[in-house]
Amino acid sequence: MGRIESNVSQNSHFNPLNPEEFRKQAHEMVDFIADYFQNIESYPVLSQVQPGYLRANLPENPPDRPEPFETIMKDVQKHIVPGMTHWLSPNFFAFFPSTVSTAGFLGEMLCTCFNSVGFNWLASPAATELEMTVMDWLAGMLKLPESFTFQGSGGGVIQNTTSEAILVTLIAARDKALTVVGADNVNKLVVYASDQTHSMFAKVCKIAGISVRNIRSIPTTLAGGFSLSPFELRTAVEADVAAGLVPVYLCLNLGTTSTTAVDPIEPLARVAKEHGMWVHVDAAYAGSACICPEFRNHLNGIERVDSLSLSPHKWLLSFLDCSCLWVQNSNALIKALSTNPEYLRNKQSESDSVVDFKDWQIGTGRRFKSLRLWFILRSYGVVNLQAHIRSDVRMAKMFEEFVRSDPRFEIVVPRQFGLVCFRLNPDENYGSDYTEMLNRKLLDWVNSTGRVYMTHTKVGGVYVLRFAVGATLTDERHVVAAWKLIKEGADALCDQLICLNTNY
Amino acid sequence: MGRIESNVSQNSHFNPLNPEEFRKQAHEMVDFIADYFQNIESYPVLSQVQPGYLRANLPENPPDRPEPFETIMKDVQKHIVPGMTHWLSPNFFAFFPSTVSTAGFLGEMLCTCFNSVGFNWLASPAATELEMTVMDWLAGMLKLPESFTFQGSGGGVIQNTTSEAILVTLIAARDKALTVVGADNVNKLVVYASDQTHSMFAKVCKIAGISVRNIRSIPTTLAGGFSLSPFELRTAVEADVAAGLVPVYLCLNLGTTSTTAVDPIEPLARVAKEHGMWVHVDAAYAGSACICPEFRNHLNGIERVDSLSLSPHKWLLSFLDCSCLWVQNSNALIKALSTNPEYLRNKQSESDSVVDFKDWQIGTGRRFKSLRLWFILRSYGVVNLQAHIRSDVRMAKMFEEFVRSDPRFEIVVPRQFGLVCFRLNPDENYGSDYTEMLNRKLLDWVNSTGRVYMTHTKVGGVYVLRFAVGATLTDERHVVAAWKLIKEGADALCDQLICLNTNY
Repeated sequence: MGRIESNVSQNSHFNPLNPEEFRKQAHEMVDFIADYFQNIESYPVLSQVQPGYLRANLPENPPDRPEPFETIMKDVQKHIVPGMTHWLSPNFFAFFPSTVSTAGFLGEMLCTCFNSVGFNWLASPAATELEMTVMDWLAGMLKLPESFTFQGSGGGVIQNTTSEAILVTLIAARDKALTVVGADNVNKLVVYASDQTHSMFAKVCKIAGISVRNIRSIPTTLAGGFSLSPFELRTAVEADVAAGLVPVYLCLNLGTTSTTAVDPIEPLARVAKEHGMWVHVDAAYAGSACICPEFRNHLNGIERVDSLSLSPHKWLLSFLDCSCLWVQNSNALIKALSTNPEYLRNKQSESDSVVDFKDWQIGTGRRFKSLRLWFILRSYGVVNLQAHIRSDVRMAKMFEEFVRSDPRFEIVVPRQFGLVCFRLNPDENYGSDYTEMLNRKLLDWVNSTGRVYMTHTKVGGVYVLRFAVGATLTDERHVVAAWKLIKEGADALCDQLICLNTNY
Repeated sequence: MGRIESNVSQNSHFNPLNPEEFRKQAHEMVDFIADYFQNIESYPVLSQVQPGYLRANLPENPPDRPEPFETIMKDVQKHIVPGMTHWLSPNFFAFFPSTVSTAGFLGEMLCTCFNSVGFNWLASPAATELEMTVMDWLAGMLKLPESFTFQGSGGGVIQNTTSEAILVTLIAARDKALTVVGADNVNKLVVYASDQTHSMFAKVCKIAGISVRNIRSIPTTLAGGFSLSPFELRTAVEADVAAGLVPVYLCLNLGTTSTTAVDPIEPLARVAKEHGMWVHVDAAYAGSACICPEFRNHLNGIERVDSLSLSPHKWLLSFLDCSCLWVQNSNALIKALSTNPEYLRNKQSESDSVVDFKDWQIGTGRRFKSLRLWFILRSYGVVNLQAHIRSDVRMAKMFEEFVRSDPRFEIVVPRQFGLVCFRLNPDENYGSDYTEMLNRKLLDWVNSTGRVYMTHTKVGGVYVLRFAVGATLTDERHVVAAWKLIKEGADALCDQLICLNTNY
């Protein structure tokens, strides 16, 4: 053996994880980030760059030799920061905010640190068991029936996004149905959701091989608050059954993307269950509010559904990407998604004494994301998380009152959570195209200032401005300033166009 | 307006992102992590806990009130660290290592900091354009044809895992084929891969609605190095065509999970292209080696394929999860995956002047992961990344020589990259079951020491021990010590079982 061992020399190879170098540079990065948080209001919320701005400023090839940390950080400040749409800005009122927190950041750092690939229990026991624990904790906070927890027949798992939560449950539902109707009959399967459902639903259904002509988008109305009607659902389902089709999956909304409309779970699930469908509740944004008793009623009937998803990155301070999925019965999921290659076999998995989360998701590898939720739940406690939800709702309510106080504007859809749907509403004589043009102009002007970022939607044919309160750093003064800016825009439009009702 | 504005009070609400609190705690976390990296050799590589260990130690419910950072960190040390299988340990030789680096960590911190949700260009111009840039950079390092870049007709996108890279390309291929054979004929579509392909391939095909009976797993042999044979592929494809089926997708391996076998791209793609199939190359682990000229030959023929995926979290120091996907033509992907809801509409997307990465992936939201790759490429330069690949290969070669020098052992499959496939090989009289039992015992013993973690596989009916060199912190001394430990295990088995060939 002497010959070979004498070949072993001292380490001289490239070391990309020297702990002392890490310590020094990571401390510098922490200061950069803390400064960024501190100065965030000084940046335009919506990036003002033009397409191609960055590619024109970066070299065509990576360097052959190392560049110093300081050089890269200079480029971050010079080239990256100006190209950011600052989602963390307290003046970000677009889409739904993506919430953050110190505790979430710390949990994420630790997740990165361990870099464990927890596809099965043995590959990372702590990652698997902590995920089970925090998912049960959250289930408790939402007062889900025990059957949604690991104490019961189900349990929860962290997916990346709602799309994946829906895809895996749809696959489970599809495969279950195919065992009854026959593997060759996928074209008979029909899925249902309201026309307010996020666009990813149709995309996910297509990915799962559901025929485009079998994806039902059931109309909703402004008068009905854009909620799915049990009567309309029943009508659609019965027509399909009469045509020889097989209803397989119903996706309900607890807070739609456009207006935070809520579908009534209980009566809708009853209809679906008469036909043996899988019922999923997409509560991506508004589900988090259900940790407050005053919002819990939106989950009434949850015991009748098969699965529920909710994204703590939207409203529970957890950073992207973190979408929680609970199922009442994990067997269908595992049956559809499990794999058992020799190279991952181990005694614990084979004894069925453990959970292997690879069988609850699309991919194999997975990060230790539960650390984020664990840090958040412990660092803030349930009481503060409830306070955080309530504070956002209170600020949205304040904005709603501002809107109501100005007769040039109207609230288009009653506010339920942290989103206000409103618009400029000129004299009826001007017609809907003119009204839309006015609101587009107002939105463009507000966003072009860089001082506020809002987005729009269109519901029931109406072009609507969306003001979503919830960025972690947003405070009342930001809402007040945003409203002042919006009024300033309306004033300017008034001067230009002499079209608004000015009797205020 | 006076009434409402007087309601606005000073901020008194819960603030989960106080920059100074963040600064303080994040600095403490940096020190914890640097210490963890420094002390990592003191932990057992494979966690020695029993199923249920953690859940038994944590409360059933989250706290109502905040707990201090210090308390949580004590629990990390007491409850989480012992339950970790330490993927960062230099003594981790299991599966494929998941590589890390200081630069990757810094890029990840910055990604978390911005928390941008880059579903389209406008939501985060810098995130979109930096991803385009680094994907083109990496394409250049791999000497991919220009058609795989944004300068050509294609481009690259960061997916979470290989499963998703394969799923999105399979969907593109499936939908393209269905426009020809008719939407109702999904059951005629056939996909192909060798029997060495990762188990997720069949799972992904099932998710996409490919009939289980149409997923071909073409046998390979030890004699053929477990490579897919063009002759076998042709035979399978022609039989399917003769039976009225439609070949649609071929997944090739550049480095299989079990043994790092490489399928010859050029002749296999030729066969597939005769039948208009989509050809994907899964180069998750070994693709990274192709940045070194001496390994680039494995990509010969790449101009004939449609897509290629490679996971920098496996061998390019990037942390989980980061799987790069390139396509030669992005149209098919975008056609299959694009959505255009009103609430995401914006001028830039509608002018077609920008890339919206939501149309290149399953989900809508996405993180700013390209920062990690940008930091890595710039901090180390191409030369050091090549050195890093070569160093791992050199250490694996050293281990291979150790094995060859001990007549009790044999190399089962010739080593190509950083993985050595070997086993104890007793006198032939003992039979294969006995040999397997011996190797299982050796593996269990080695792993039970906590000093090394290796895994196994089974190929061509042979139970094989896998020694994968590549954890970022692994140095020659760790490989030497691991071999010493393995020999010690073999010695103990010898004493117990008197079955090994001891004439060395």
